[in-house]
Amino acid sequence: MQTIRKDADNRNTAILLIYCPDKQGILASVTEFLNENKGNIIYLDQHVDHEEGLFYMRVEWELGEFAIPREKIADYFETLIAQKYSMQFALHFSDKRPRMAIFVSKMSHCLFDILSRYVGGDWDTEIPLIISNHETMRPVADSFGIDYIVVEINSGNKAQQEKLEIEILEKYNIDFVVLARYMQVLSDDFVKHFPNRIINIHHSFLPAFAGAKPYHAAHQRGVKIIGATSHYVTADLDAGPIIAQDVVRISHIDTVDSLIRKGRDLEKIVLSEAVYKHLQRKILVYNNRTVVFN
Amino acid sequence: MQTIRKDADNRNTAILLIYCPDKQGILASVTEFLNENKGNIIYLDQHVDHEEGLFYMRVEWELGEFAIPREKIADYFETLIAQKYSMQFALHFSDKRPRMAIFVSKMSHCLFDILSRYVGGDWDTEIPLIISNHETMRPVADSFGIDYIVVEINSGNKAQQEKLEIEILEKYNIDFVVLARYMQVLSDDFVKHFPNRIINIHHSFLPAFAGAKPYHAAHQRGVKIIGATSHYVTADLDAGPIIAQDVVRISHIDTVDSLIRKGRDLEKIVLSEAVYKHLQRKILVYNNRTVVFN
Amino acid sequence: MQTIRKDADNRNTAILLIYCPDKQGILASVTEFLNENKGNIIYLDQHVDHEEGLFYMRVEWELGEFAIPREKIADYFETLIAQKYSMQFALHFSDKRPRMAIFVSKMSHCLFDILSRYVGGDWDTEIPLIISNHETMRPVADSFGIDYIVVEINSGNKAQQEKLEIEILEKYNIDFVVLARYMQVLSDDFVKHFPNRIINIHHSFLPAFAGAKPYHAAHQRGVKIIGATSHYVTADLDAGPIIAQDVVRISHIDTVDSLIRKGRDLEKIVLSEAVYKHLQRKILVYNNRTVVFN
Amino acid sequence: MQTIRKDADNRNTAILLIYCPDKQGILASVTEFLNENKGNIIYLDQHVDHEEGLFYMRVEWELGEFAIPREKIADYFETLIAQKYSMQFALHFSDKRPRMAIFVSKMSHCLFDILSRYVGGDWDTEIPLIISNHETMRPVADSFGIDYIVVEINSGNKAQQEKLEIEILEKYNIDFVVLARYMQVLSDDFVKHFPNRIINIHHSFLPAFAGAKPYHAAHQRGVKIIGATSHYVTADLDAGPIIAQDVVRISHIDTVDSLIRKGRDLEKIVLSEAVYKHLQRKILVYNNRTVVFN
Repeated sequence: MQTIRKDADNRNTAILLIYCPDKQGILASVTEFLNENKGNIIYLDQHVDHEEGLFYMRVEWELGEFAIPREKIADYFETLIAQKYSMQFALHFSDKRPRMAIFVSKMSHCLFDILSRYVGGDWDTEIPLIISNHETMRPVADSFGIDYIVVEINSGNKAQQEKLEIEILEKYNIDFVVLARYMQVLSDDFVKHFPNRIINIHHSFLPAFAGAKPYHAAHQRGVKIIGATSHYVTADLDAGPIIAQDVVRISHIDTVDSLIRKGRDLEKIVLSEAVYKHLQRKILVYNNRTVVFN
Repeated sequence: MQTIRKDADNRNTAILLIYCPDKQGILASVTEFLNENKGNIIYLDQHVDHEEGLFYMRVEWELGEFAIPREKIADYFETLIAQKYSMQFALHFSDKRPRMAIFVSKMSHCLFDILSRYVGGDWDTEIPLIISNHETMRPVADSFGIDYIVVEINSGNKAQQEKLEIEILEKYNIDFVVLARYMQVLSDDFVKHFPNRIINIHHSFLPAFAGAKPYHAAHQRGVKIIGATSHYVTADLDAGPIIAQDVVRISHIDTVDSLIRKGRDLEKIVLSEAVYKHLQRKILVYNNRTVVFN
Repeated sequence: MQTIRKDADNRNTAILLIYCPDKQGILASVTEFLNENKGNIIYLDQHVDHEEGLFYMRVEWELGEFAIPREKIADYFETLIAQKYSMQFALHFSDKRPRMAIFVSKMSHCLFDILSRYVGGDWDTEIPLIISNHETMRPVADSFGIDYIVVEINSGNKAQQEKLEIEILEKYNIDFVVLARYMQVLSDDFVKHFPNRIINIHHSFLPAFAGAKPYHAAHQRGVKIIGATSHYVTADLDAGPIIAQDVVRISHIDTVDSLIRKGRDLEKIVLSEAVYKHLQRKILVYNNRTVVFN
Repeated sequence: MQTIRKDADNRNTAILLIYCPDKQGILASVTEFLNENKGNIIYLDQHVDHEEGLFYMRVEWELGEFAIPREKIADYFETLIAQKYSMQFALHFSDKRPRMAIFVSKMSHCLFDILSRYVGGDWDTEIPLIISNHETMRPVADSFGIDYIVVEINSGNKAQQEKLEIEILEKYNIDFVVLARYMQVLSDDFVKHFPNRIINIHHSFLPAFAGAKPYHAAHQRGVKIIGATSHYVTADLDAGPIIAQDVVRISHIDTVDSLIRKGRDLEKIVLSEAVYKHLQRKILVYNNRTVVFN
């Protein structure tokens, strides 16, 4: 299938994500730096966590008239601003489309949701690769024209197969990984290769019902609302920084099967929302929590 | 793409949807009728509208041991029960899969959502046909292996082209039609061919913002929540019986474009929920309202 | 303050709550029993849990023409119907207003919410008594004309003071107890005196963040939604059958203080919803879960 | 009843609400102005509406070390900053508690909700006055120790009685008015005395079901969700700038009465949320829409 490209927003922009100890003058310093160099700010959002004494900011500006060449922006910003405030910062450019790999097992709903947004032109990304431990989803990958590689994992070969996966991801120049109901636990070693760059969907309202079979557990407990949680994957299972959550009301009428059915809609929407925010570079991670700018 | 059939629920069942003036004894009469004839009831829901004095019921029972042959059930029920209570009723069989046609224009999100549920095996239906007034979605239809027929509509040829559409729908033995963001208004004549069998998605929280460009209107009015509404199509535009609605919070930060983006998720979920309920024969229509059983 | 009595629904009704192993014919038996004795059914809801093989039902009928005297209904029903199906049942009469006691500590929001519904005439109950371990809320009780008794609890006197509380509750003929952010844990012994008759509000979306300081824990974990849970109190802390839950979206902008502020609205609405359902006799408890009829 | 004062946040702060045509440098100018004069910023939120080319900002800073005396801040800001950018601005001080009057008719739920927050110490406001066209709520006012004045309105005396109300409001130094289900339409003339200072609650999800009897209309239309809307009152009935909205799911089971019951909870929460935001000076109005800062 051909991707339906939306009328592109052709403005080349740079995006800065910043956090640092809160001090007077940070905001003024950053905006002056951009103004003086003719960077037209088109988006600015900042947040101060007074409890932790931390300052967070996302600013996006047009590169058209910007006086500093793009390859030197990071260097100049580091020297002129970041050092003064002990900033952590990340610089992105809107014309660099991140490359995504999708990991799947046998369930199709999250995969289809991602691919339909991709093909529909809703997301600024490239998806060259799907990895799975099963053949099941190959026809879907084929019909969307995406490479599909099966890497079988069993109790004995995990370290070796993950090494293979990392090689494949590098070969495809993958920037981040989306686990679209991929039912394997990733090793710490794998996770360390992609810090804050693996997005998972857990089929419960975390921290409730972490672990396996959350819909069965929710039914057993008799909750009146179920949820889904997208998060960055960390070494600690189901405990990574939460990006997005959503819920739906249920009742005594619901069976485990109907929870699974209702949960599918939550899972795909919540996972895709997280991917969208990641692609927009609107997420900052600190202390195992996220700042998700609007 | 091959449909992934779920482990089928192989029990053959019959489903009765009933409404009539409320009287003592209706529920007992119906359940006795089924019990006496060895119909094992697996689902029963009933509702009395005391304001209107109406009784509504949906009952589903296993046909395995049922004493009355399936082709005679309607006749026996009419004679023995329905006449006594002046009932309107509809009888369905779970092994008869309804045949759906999808109408689309140029937007893909609802179409993909429907097809991914279909191919994922979530719905008990056949989708042999997609009709559109544009070529845009043909590649999607092709990749899912579904016939795609373009019927161009313009201001001059509407009556004639709708006649053609009806012929096509009849040729394909279509039971009901889903308008998946199909941007054409159907004539009264077309609608009359499919009473309570055309499902539309309107991209607002009806009755707010009926008509064209509801996201622009919502932005203009400054609402803090937007919605989507699925409904059966009637002669009166955007005024048919509502099946499902959902909403999402927005704020002053949202632009018309971000409303459109957020609205897409609502639209596809709300439309698919309506289709699911229709396929489950859980919807009763009366007085331009719906009873949607759980 | 004088209670504002709403125009009463003067129909005297009886309410049966039933559950038993699922079998053919239960529903027909019950409705026939009522029909034959001229009990006009004004509400009937039933539910079959096919996984557990259990049948649940709530039926309400007018006593006006009912052939069996109210004091004999339980006896007749037991003999003629319940024994046959091994039913558990409870019989209530709408003209018997349950008597509620409220337990509070120092927070006023749930207390005010309950009292404003009571005085507003929204609830069919009597509230003759508020018990607290602090003097703080006495002025509120006074202004609503409700007795306020302080029973101080400390680490050394709990058993003795709970005994005192039980005596007070008996003296006031209390049917059920509402813990309106009462910050004391009740002993198993106390709880056993009021099985499924103590309603608590927990300030989190259980089972997430059980125990103390849930808003701090939610903030620490970085969740994007917080909730509140009303439940019947059992010996196992925060693990009783859930009656109602609700949630609200939060973001990185929220502090612990703003979570507490937003949580207050959830808590009072969710607690009052549970009390309302309890007063309507619409809750059935089994296996530590609830059936909450509509 | 005595107000329960929360541990006050004793920091004296100033709050600026600004909007103006968007230009480069506004944000830097404002933050420099505050930084240079030793105003420690504790909150800053800004928003650019690129469609309308407008810049919005709310900034709050501590007055403790601030170099400009508070009575001169407006003057300095006007001269040094506002004129340069053609700004509209409003300056508030956190130690000035706005004085609220409540208008009621015969319904108590919104009134109790407001008063319980007030007495609970949740709001930084004074409520010296309740005005009504009926005696009904006088006992509530009495028990909370608030003056209650009845101003009867009928078809013949409206202009005269509103004049009286304005005199009373002036005598009590009232800053803003909350219509807590006050069932009278205010004249344009009255509204003009309090621009963006009268907050109403409408018992529907506006713009759906404007006008009288929205719950009846919602039931008639068969919607699956109902809502409530708080807004500033303008000359155009139910068409003022929306501040907050919320919704709740309903079904075919709901009667008009149950909609009214469920709606009460929405109404009180949504109205109180609007009052809270107003008290926090977090609302900017333009083009009949609101910016509601977090």
